[in-house]
Amino acid sequence: MRRNLVVRSIERADPEVIAELGEVGVATVHEAMGRIGLLGTHLSPIQRGVRIAGSAVTVSCHPGDNLMIHAAVEQVADGDVLVVTTTSPSTDGMFGELLATSLRAHGCVGLVIDAGVRDVAELNELGFPVWARAVSAQGTVKATPGSVNVPVVCAGGLVNPGDVVVADDDGVVVVPFASAAAANEAARSRLEREAATRQRLAAGELGLDLYGLRQRLEELGVAYVDRLDD
Amino acid sequence: MRRNLVVRSIERADPEVIAELGEVGVATVHEAMGRIGLLGTHLSPIQRGVRIAGSAVTVSCHPGDNLMIHAAVEQVADGDVLVVTTTSPSTDGMFGELLATSLRAHGCVGLVIDAGVRDVAELNELGFPVWARAVSAQGTVKATPGSVNVPVVCAGGLVNPGDVVVADDDGVVVVPFASAAAANEAARSRLEREAATRQRLAAGELGLDLYGLRQRLEELGVAYVDRLDD
Amino acid sequence: MRRNLVVRSIERADPEVIAELGEVGVATVHEAMGRIGLLGTHLSPIQRGVRIAGSAVTVSCHPGDNLMIHAAVEQVADGDVLVVTTTSPSTDGMFGELLATSLRAHGCVGLVIDAGVRDVAELNELGFPVWARAVSAQGTVKATPGSVNVPVVCAGGLVNPGDVVVADDDGVVVVPFASAAAANEAARSRLEREAATRQRLAAGELGLDLYGLRQRLEELGVAYVDRLDD
Amino acid sequence: MRRNLVVRSIERADPEVIAELGEVGVATVHEAMGRIGLLGTHLSPIQRGVRIAGSAVTVSCHPGDNLMIHAAVEQVADGDVLVVTTTSPSTDGMFGELLATSLRAHGCVGLVIDAGVRDVAELNELGFPVWARAVSAQGTVKATPGSVNVPVVCAGGLVNPGDVVVADDDGVVVVPFASAAAANEAARSRLEREAATRQRLAAGELGLDLYGLRQRLEELGVAYVDRLDD
Amino acid sequence: MRRNLVVRSIERADPEVIAELGEVGVATVHEAMGRIGLLGTHLSPIQRGVRIAGSAVTVSCHPGDNLMIHAAVEQVADGDVLVVTTTSPSTDGMFGELLATSLRAHGCVGLVIDAGVRDVAELNELGFPVWARAVSAQGTVKATPGSVNVPVVCAGGLVNPGDVVVADDDGVVVVPFASAAAANEAARSRLEREAATRQRLAAGELGLDLYGLRQRLEELGVAYVDRLDD
Amino acid sequence: MRRNLVVRSIERADPEVIAELGEVGVATVHEAMGRIGLLGTHLSPIQRGVRIAGSAVTVSCHPGDNLMIHAAVEQVADGDVLVVTTTSPSTDGMFGELLATSLRAHGCVGLVIDAGVRDVAELNELGFPVWARAVSAQGTVKATPGSVNVPVVCAGGLVNPGDVVVADDDGVVVVPFASAAAANEAARSRLEREAATRQRLAAGELGLDLYGLRQRLEELGVAYVDRLDD
Repeated sequence: MRRNLVVRSIERADPEVIAELGEVGVATVHEAMGRIGLLGTHLSPIQRGVRIAGSAVTVSCHPGDNLMIHAAVEQVADGDVLVVTTTSPSTDGMFGELLATSLRAHGCVGLVIDAGVRDVAELNELGFPVWARAVSAQGTVKATPGSVNVPVVCAGGLVNPGDVVVADDDGVVVVPFASAAAANEAARSRLEREAATRQRLAAGELGLDLYGLRQRLEELGVAYVDRLDD
Repeated sequence: MRRNLVVRSIERADPEVIAELGEVGVATVHEAMGRIGLLGTHLSPIQRGVRIAGSAVTVSCHPGDNLMIHAAVEQVADGDVLVVTTTSPSTDGMFGELLATSLRAHGCVGLVIDAGVRDVAELNELGFPVWARAVSAQGTVKATPGSVNVPVVCAGGLVNPGDVVVADDDGVVVVPFASAAAANEAARSRLEREAATRQRLAAGELGLDLYGLRQRLEELGVAYVDRLDD
Repeated sequence: MRRNLVVRSIERADPEVIAELGEVGVATVHEAMGRIGLLGTHLSPIQRGVRIAGSAVTVSCHPGDNLMIHAAVEQVADGDVLVVTTTSPSTDGMFGELLATSLRAHGCVGLVIDAGVRDVAELNELGFPVWARAVSAQGTVKATPGSVNVPVVCAGGLVNPGDVVVADDDGVVVVPFASAAAANEAARSRLEREAATRQRLAAGELGLDLYGLRQRLEELGVAYVDRLDD
Repeated sequence: MRRNLVVRSIERADPEVIAELGEVGVATVHEAMGRIGLLGTHLSPIQRGVRIAGSAVTVSCHPGDNLMIHAAVEQVADGDVLVVTTTSPSTDGMFGELLATSLRAHGCVGLVIDAGVRDVAELNELGFPVWARAVSAQGTVKATPGSVNVPVVCAGGLVNPGDVVVADDDGVVVVPFASAAAANEAARSRLEREAATRQRLAAGELGLDLYGLRQRLEELGVAYVDRLDD
Repeated sequence: MRRNLVVRSIERADPEVIAELGEVGVATVHEAMGRIGLLGTHLSPIQRGVRIAGSAVTVSCHPGDNLMIHAAVEQVADGDVLVVTTTSPSTDGMFGELLATSLRAHGCVGLVIDAGVRDVAELNELGFPVWARAVSAQGTVKATPGSVNVPVVCAGGLVNPGDVVVADDDGVVVVPFASAAAANEAARSRLEREAATRQRLAAGELGLDLYGLRQRLEELGVAYVDRLDD
Repeated sequence: MRRNLVVRSIERADPEVIAELGEVGVATVHEAMGRIGLLGTHLSPIQRGVRIAGSAVTVSCHPGDNLMIHAAVEQVADGDVLVVTTTSPSTDGMFGELLATSLRAHGCVGLVIDAGVRDVAELNELGFPVWARAVSAQGTVKATPGSVNVPVVCAGGLVNPGDVVVADDDGVVVVPFASAAAANEAARSRLEREAATRQRLAAGELGLDLYGLRQRLEELGVAYVDRLDD
């Protein structure tokens, strides 16, 4: 019943919006969107201190088989992020330096993969950003069909082709294609509010006062005592 | 039956003793105390190469709710370490850059949390040391009561308010308030003995001879042979 | 029925072959050998960006007991790698800075241990490379017999004394003593082929064409469509 | 940006088709659909030997908060299965005997929950079938909004309201609403083919011959030898 | 600094109160106490469908060493539950049929152990109830000192000697010695309230109405719509 | 460098010795052998209360590919146990009811697999004993070569073809072919000693006295006190 497809055309969000989301970072985008779209926290950055955003080119692979990643390279456009999932859990090293070289040559700005990667030292030298579930030297075959640019579930979250993927040290968040502009606007407002809050907190003002939480504590029956035995 | 409390006054150890424990490091303090007080090894340092010590201000939160961390900021004094636990397991990002800014403004020197944190890049820029169970951008609410400065179980270990918390790349160890001076003294002696041992080992002397283990191996029936088939 | 043994003499591979394997790296050696010999991916490097190779001196310990590591130091020769396993799972810190100092004094170039280590900051200062299952300050006793230089299962893989151990950011791979020269030769050929492939991929050529995968996709029934709804 | 919704009307598949899918079982349905729709294997049956099928009523909850399960009971119709997910990972006991009593009174035939449950002994007495991530007595609050009958990701899979959920000892599989009849037909054909295969295998015929695998082994270079050293 | 102790005298709660708590079960006791005292959910019952309560005799062991369990047998009185923890994580089979036979001969009614057990078939035949972290045939030594009847942290919770331990299919909860009577009374009231609630829910009344949750949903902004696209 | 082989002839232990080992059980055999040969505790019995022993026919598969299990059926003789491992970790359901039917038709008495299985309800009806890492309905392909009857590492332990595999509720232990008779004899002696010990413990005698542990406690500095504060 399932057909394996490679879809050639996907819609992408406005590049300027994508670039701005990439400056904002995962935690703020996630908050601004109402706390949806975060992928599983078992995905870690291979390199620390990097922040990217791009349009998702999605790939669904058989575990231990990277045939469809090769098919996906051809579908990548400038500024895209490859999002790879497997049809059952795997930690095999499905991606390494040669595929990174190939993806970069086609304009891809990073990889999110719910499986293993290898050639970590070489990926660091290349400076190609990767978020992965595991590091493993275990190689893969190129034998089983799958799909490119169909909706996938990656690390517990739904990713549609063309969705904006934002990734940094805090993880990976997915912004639906159609919400990108609104999410960016909401994130920008949030950044401004946070800047004001940061200044007041740095000056010693308490969150209890800033957010009006004293009354809530009282309503919830939290008692203040001078010593534990009081 | 359980009351939610914020306790305002806690006793702290001698600041000089705390500072000296912070120089010694987790592994040696743990050994010197007779191998007690180590928190679970699932707590990792967000920044590598940092070593801190301070008095514990303890916080018990509902999972996914950081209301009580805000209440705790007000109770923090210069040199304190915030120790946060949740009433059931959670990897949500209960702590980020804004709370770090606020804690630092009140003199707090670091955070130990048996849950998730976010804004990792920003925490690194701030240089605010954190030991956590997970990194997650998933935000939290401020809705459920809890307690500050009551005894808590954090990462499998008991922490009383005012206990000295020592943390570095090896993890987190808790020194009971009343044992701080004795632990420091024992740790200092241990450091001196280790310095002598280190010099002899670096010169090629064997631990077998240094610790008198040859006889033990013989008593335990360990045989020396020239080849496996002998 | 089991005897505990310390075996004094082991055969080692040609030092030049070992050195060359150390330059190649784990992923390529693993591929060149036909994808065997990889140890479990739960072993992580304590230091990133390091690559070593050496002859295995194997150690089988009781969990939480490092007596036999002390016995192993005496059996180490220049260029050896210590490979430590426990007879049941443990994350205790069985190895730290003093043992590293001692091993280095006897020529050992690194440690692979399917258990915990401690003194991470000090190990980093020393620059002694370690691959381990966990970091834990929990110390150990020196009370239970075990063996040195017998065949062991470490992190799910079989390691014989004298096997060549290669380790880097991608993990740890074990090359049987007798296959070292052949593995090195196979790895060298592979490196040359990869260099040619890398150049073509960097120039934008597709893996689909380079590896002749287009026909395979067609045989496997993967359909190309312009839009998902086609 | 996210609105919390309770959707009152959902489309359901033909009850006869659902009943027939429930007789087939998870592994065969999963195969018949082309191996899609399987939820994560961390969901285990609380009772062994039970097999159910029903239309999904979906629930998205805050972790540790079962307010929306109460809202969902009102939306349940005869033969439905409740599918509950949380917005971040949780093992709390969000469901117990009282909610099971309430669900059963409204015709619900079972629960799939990517979180914890409690009252296991009582659920067994009731005979109310449950698939869950964990067992935990940890109770929950009723404080945070969420949604009922919106698309959710549960245990790594996408579930739309009205999708057919089939669950047994092998796990949980989700059949999209629109594919239920086709999946049932494909599963029925598969069952017939399997019955024939089973008979031949039970009579001693080899899968190697039945599936024509001997030639494949030869093409793949698998050699037959009489002894390992040959 | 740490002394290893065997404490001979402990205070126990009223046997009638203990017996009544044992009838109530873990989830209700945990609720009645204000949701404290639950041990980690990684402890599972070896036998399903059993419910016990008794006074804790606590044991702190070195991992892989059951010497102190033998010392504890002598301290057990009629109706006690043995609570065993290790000073670092272990899954070794520290307890089996012989120790169960010995404990039963001294009146012990069950075991809670944050480590492994073995002889599962024999424990089932004996009908000796056990809650454990793992099943493992790996045996242990009797070589390292520890303590009996001192406060311990077991599976993340604090247990004092003489505390009442209640365990069933839902896990293990610890009632502090001094709170046993109050906890029992609170649990009894809760049971009565639950019986009334159960009857109303079984008759089809909704929790939304019973608990007054409709207004809360409205305040929280949860919208009711007829279809998802409304 | 690796050749994929199917080895036709293996040596098996004396059937009477195998049958006797099967009566003894895993924990006692493991003890009698000096605590070696236990496979990882992540292997659980699909059916409880079963105990088997047989000669190992070993299978090395690609993850998610059961081609070589089909090849192995032909190599099975009366009384054999199939031992399946994968070249990298997998939880896919590589084995189900049809393969069990086929194996049984050829005399196989059980399966040990470091991967997933499915058709659990049907396996229970058949009464075919299985020890596995996971239950998963995820099916597999028949595409990648592997080996039958070569030495394999399964669940962290080395298994040679013809080794005796003993499995029950406590897990799986492997007795090397050449040690089977000696292991059986040692296990028989151990059973006799245990019977005597059991009788004395059931009569109330303490392990402290029976094993002479009182003196050890004293030597180790364990102090007896009447109350904790003494």
